[in-house]
Formats: sequence, C-alpha cells, structure tokens
Amino acid sequence: MQNFSYQNPTKLIFGKGTIAEVANEIPANAKVLLTYGGGSIKKNGVYDVAKKALGNRLKAEFGGIEPNPRYETLIKTLDIIKKEDIDFLLAVGGGSVLDGTKFIALAAKHTGGDPWDFMVGKSPNPKSALPVASILTLPATGSESNANFVVSRNSTQEKFGGFSPLIYPKFSILDPETTYTLPAKQTANGVVDAFVHTMEQYLTGVGGVIEFAPLQDRWAESILTTLIEQGKRGIDEPQNYEVRATLMWSATMALNGLISRGVPEDWATHGIGHELTAFYGIDHGRTLAVVMPGLWRNQFAKKKAKLAQYGHRVWGLLSQKPGQEGRDEVAYLAIEKTEEFFESLGVPTHLKDYGVDSKEAAEKISQRFTDRGFTSEHGLGENGSIGPKEIKEILESR
Amino acid sequence: MQNFSYQNPTKLIFGKGTIAEVANEIPANAKVLLTYGGGSIKKNGVYDVAKKALGNRLKAEFGGIEPNPRYETLIKTLDIIKKEDIDFLLAVGGGSVLDGTKFIALAAKHTGGDPWDFMVGKSPNPKSALPVASILTLPATGSESNANFVVSRNSTQEKFGGFSPLIYPKFSILDPETTYTLPAKQTANGVVDAFVHTMEQYLTGVGGVIEFAPLQDRWAESILTTLIEQGKRGIDEPQNYEVRATLMWSATMALNGLISRGVPEDWATHGIGHELTAFYGIDHGRTLAVVMPGLWRNQFAKKKAKLAQYGHRVWGLLSQKPGQEGRDEVAYLAIEKTEEFFESLGVPTHLKDYGVDSKEAAEKISQRFTDRGFTSEHGLGENGSIGPKEIKEILESR
Repeated sequence: MQNFSYQNPTKLIFGKGTIAEVANEIPANAKVLLTYGGGSIKKNGVYDVAKKALGNRLKAEFGGIEPNPRYETLIKTLDIIKKEDIDFLLAVGGGSVLDGTKFIALAAKHTGGDPWDFMVGKSPNPKSALPVASILTLPATGSESNANFVVSRNSTQEKFGGFSPLIYPKFSILDPETTYTLPAKQTANGVVDAFVHTMEQYLTGVGGVIEFAPLQDRWAESILTTLIEQGKRGIDEPQNYEVRATLMWSATMALNGLISRGVPEDWATHGIGHELTAFYGIDHGRTLAVVMPGLWRNQFAKKKAKLAQYGHRVWGLLSQKPGQEGRDEVAYLAIEKTEEFFESLGVPTHLKDYGVDSKEAAEKISQRFTDRGFTSEHGLGENGSIGPKEIKEILESR
Repeated sequence: MQNFSYQNPTKLIFGKGTIAEVANEIPANAKVLLTYGGGSIKKNGVYDVAKKALGNRLKAEFGGIEPNPRYETLIKTLDIIKKEDIDFLLAVGGGSVLDGTKFIALAAKHTGGDPWDFMVGKSPNPKSALPVASILTLPATGSESNANFVVSRNSTQEKFGGFSPLIYPKFSILDPETTYTLPAKQTANGVVDAFVHTMEQYLTGVGGVIEFAPLQDRWAESILTTLIEQGKRGIDEPQNYEVRATLMWSATMALNGLISRGVPEDWATHGIGHELTAFYGIDHGRTLAVVMPGLWRNQFAKKKAKLAQYGHRVWGLLSQKPGQEGRDEVAYLAIEKTEEFFESLGVPTHLKDYGVDSKEAAEKISQRFTDRGFTSEHGLGENGSIGPKEIKEILESR
C-alpha cells in the first residue's frame, strides 16, 4: 500500500424529501446563483422545492448548462455574478451542471488571464473560489462528493479535467426520488460511468503486479457487484426507491477518493474517452464502455492478474483447470462479461454502433496524443504505457 | 435505506515515515499538550520523532492515560492546560489515549458544572472544545477518524460513551510501522474490536428483516473478510508492513461512520461489554468477544437472516439443502465460526477463561440495567429488545 492522505469535507445529505434542507445549510444572508441544465428540474418539481427553500437567498438563475459543459457557456455567468454580487453557487442537476458550476466557482475568483488557464496547466493552483453546493439529480460522476471537474471548449474541440480542494461541495443533497423520471439512457450511462470510475482505481497492475490493498480491492469489488446487481433494475423499475437509492449511493462512493487510497490509478479510458466526446459528441459514459474493454485487451499482460481476480470475485468465474493455469482464461472471460453487462444496459460498446468509423477515430485521436507529446514510454495509464500507438490499436479494435 | 447525513472532516495521513508531518498540520504558534499512555511511545521512537517535529509548539506533556481512560486521571490535565495556556491537544497512542484526550478537549472548555455531566446526559451538547489531533499507534477503536469517545469513572464503576462533532480529530497520522512492536495480545484485541465495530453496524435485523442496503452490506463484509484473512498474520508476522497497513486501515474504516449510513445499528454488545470492563477490568476487545456470540444466539430469530448472509458471504458456508431450508443451519454455523476466529487470535470467548463467574456477572450486570430502567421492550439493540432478562441470559450462557 502506498502512502496517502485523505480528507473529504463535503457534507452528504441523503434521502427522501431532503431538498428543502438547503435552507438549513446555506447562510440566511447568502446571495445565491442557482445553476441548472436543460430544464428537467422544472418538470420533476426539484426546481420549485429548491426555490421555495432558498427564499430571498436566490438572487439569480442560470440554466442551459449542457452535457459536457462548455467554457463558452459557463463564462457567461461571470457578468451575472458580478452584477448580483453572488457569493454562493448552488448547482442543481447531474455531473455536467456540477462540473460546470465548479469551473464557474474558480473562474469567478480568477484574476489575471483567461480562466481556461486552469485547464491547460498555465494557472494550476487557484487561490480562491466561490463556495459551491449541489442538489444531485443524476447519479454518475461522483462530482457531488469530490473536487474534480471536466469542462470542454468548443472552439478548440478540447475536453479537460481539473482539480482543486477549493471546490469540494460544501454540501450535496442526494434525494433518490429525483431520479425516478430519468430516461433509461441516462440511468444506464450513469451506471456505466460509476462502474468505470471504480475500474480506473481498481483494475490496475503496475508491471503486471497487483498492489497489496485487500480492503480497497474488496470495496471496489463491492461497488462493481452492486452496480451489476442493481443497474438493470434501475432501468426496469425506475420508481423503485431502494434500487434508485443504492445506485445513487454507489455512484457517489465510486469517486469520492476512498477506494483509490494507497493504490495505483489508471484513468487511460477516461483520457481516450474524452476525445471521443470532443470529436464525435458521444455521451461520456458511452465512450467509456467503448474504450475500456479494448484497452484491457491491449494491456492484457500487465492487467491480467487483476482481471482474473475481478473475474473470479465479481463474476464468479472459476478456472476450469487446477491451480493457476486457467487464470488467463478467467481474465479474458471477465472482459467479455463486462462488455455483455454494458450491452445489457442498452449501452453499445463499439464505435460503429455510434456511426463512427473506428479507423478514422483511431487516426485522429492518436494524432492528438502524438501532438501532445505522449509516447508508449510516457503515456497514459498506471504503467504510462499507453501512447499514440496503443491508442490507435485500441480504437481500431472497437 | 434510511435517510442520513454524512460528513467526516478528519484529515488522514497514512503511511511510512509520516509522523514528522505534524509539523505541517499544526500551526507554528500553537501551544500543544502532548498526551500519551503507558510510555510505549518512548520505547518505539514515536515520542522522539513527534517531539522533534513539534519543536517549540510543545508546551507540556501528560502521560499515564490508562486503558479505559479514567475521569479521575484525565481531569488532572485541566490545571496544566490552564497554566500553560494550551490551545491544541495531540494524542499519541491508541484508542484510550485518543478517547481520553477528546474528553479533555471538551472538559477544558466546559463551564458551569462537572465535565462528567456530558457522560450522564446532564450537559449533552458541548458548545466548544480544544482542537484535537492524533498519532495513532494501535489500530482498533476508529477513534482517530470519528467523534466518539468512551471514558470510565473509577469512583462509580461506570463506563460511558460520548459524541460531539467538535472532537473530530483535525488530522490523524497512521504510520503502520508504529504497530510493529505491539504485543500479540494488543494486536488481537484490536482486530476483534474492529471486527465487532463492523458487526454492530451490519449484523442487524429489525423485526427479523434485513435493511436493503447492498453496498453498505458489502463494505462491511469486505472489512470482516479482510480482518479474518489478515488478522492472524498481524500476530504471526508483526513486521509485515502490508499486513500491518491493511489492519490499520481496516480498523479506521470500521468506525468512521461510512458503513452505518442508512442502516440500523445494534451496539448492544458494546453496552454489555462496557459493564464487564467496569466490574472486572477485562480488556474492551475481549469483552466483545465474550458477549457477541451469546447475544446472537439470544436474538437468533431476529438476526438469523443476516447471520445466514454473513455465513454465506464471509465464511463461504453453503446450505446443504436446496432453497432456503438450510439457512438457519448456516446462521448457527456462522456464530461458531466467529467464536473460532476469536479463539484463533488467542482471544478467549467465555467468562471462565477470565476467571469470572458467569452467574455472578449475569446477576450484577442485569441488575444495573434494571436500575437504569431498561426493559425487554425498551432495551438495547436495533430492536430495543435486550433488557435485563436477556442480558442475564446472555451472560449466563458465556
């Protein structure tokens, strides 16, 4: 187990009828900007409850934050924030609204230059941010309980992630009933997203060796098993409270930093997936379902020990042969099982299913990583072994 | 899943060589009281490293906090705190030192009355406390990452638990190497303590029904499985870093509040166990090993469904019969397996092993619960069904 530190200050308020608690959590004299997305919160009643609870604190609203929130959209809030003297941001929606609002929180306090500088490493350590909180309506990204965010820039077809301890939400309200009206597609995307987040922190093998961290492994396997068991039910029984609650809690726990303590992390699937979104507009969760199985096959020698553990413990796959001989087989089967799981949720796992030519995508995206200076020795993943060549192979295979 | 809220502000700093980081975490102008126990920290080097890192911040020391820290001991620090104008408490040791120091933190800011008032409900909501932090040297209680503490009062043979959000440690340093020199008995007690903490939040059945919380269940089962797998190794291979690290991390995760979110909790084993410590001085962890199996048998009808799940998932016990018919058998066997596990660590599970007459203990302790107004309808446990009668039965059976 590697050395680590861990601190997560976000207060999570979880359960039925908890939205009105914003009134207890935001100071009475706060000047709040409420941010949201495409307007589903106005249909499902969340907006009304939140608005009533905020009362006079609500000074302005900003809707229309899109999936894969764009710099060009978010930057428009800065005028409102200045004009209304906003001192608190309340994001109501899914991961995109939360991520976008975290970017706004930093951008509003940024001085000297373009706030995009955070994203491209020119201004890596922001000094202050507006306080952010959230009412989550789409379990998927874990943004409600971490200090990460991902923002896209239209003009340059770029999508980058950022991190700052300043933007841990002060609190996040998770009411599973708000997810009853989610379309099946969004529920499925959320399950896949949480599943792959878990994998990025679990399915690693530095030089082929599994890090000794039995509790972290089992916690990750617990999330995976739970998502497999309950994911399809979330689609088939959209108003089953217990199922919705379990999916919501699992997605939060998948990316609040706990399961990655002391172990190597991968994140190559996300790195490649972001490019599929940037170029082709494929939903984030779906890009992950496309990339990950291909990446595992490409990096099989390094990952096979952990794949075998995953296949055995999560899928109950047993080697046909005594001893260790069958482990490669279990590892291969585990990849297939994962693809089948994604497909069973209605999430296709190949580029042609999205109308994208895999050869073209492979060329274009691997070129981008070449341009950014990645190589097979200094590349993505826990071994740094995924460079343009591997990215091309991975995408061609999908 | 029940509604809940969760926030844990403690910063955990985990790993080899991390003790010196106190210098980065405590303000340079702080006036620190360092508290410790029997002096093992002077033998294993922890004291020297901490003292050097604290430098001029260290204004006073207070050693001799005993296992099951006593009010009579702790209260002596108040004069030192006043005299040296102490504004920060650093506890170096195990759960007893931490718990005692948390009590000191509250007592130092208490006005109007005896600080024991917290413990007996006369002053239930302390308004302020000195900041506390810790360097943990004995994984067991989880006190390093929660706001709980347990204190005993010699003059009245009482042992009570308290809670206040004010006493979450600001940070806790967990260096597994500090546990290399722990005696086997203390390692074993710690494993049992963490194991039973997990059980108090997991092995429940309100009216015989298992709460639907698949992720919380699996996380608890992960801790149990890991302690079973690594516990004996901690005793046999005291200087195996990976094993020590895993036991330390497991004990912290067993009682930082996460696995109990949204589920019923029991804590009757602790309630009864505290009395065995108060009357007979049996180590805390050992009292739990005595009480819990008896309590499970006594409450079998209510707990058997979860016992069967535990037996199946953690011990791999399979019913001999098709369908559900064999579940009672699996549930019974799971209790036996648990006793065997404790015994395998060198922790006896019956009162006679500690030279205590079970009939006498049963009388004395059940009388105490009668005096306090408990009944079989308003008693301990997740069903409130453990009153003096049940306590007598449980202890007589041990």
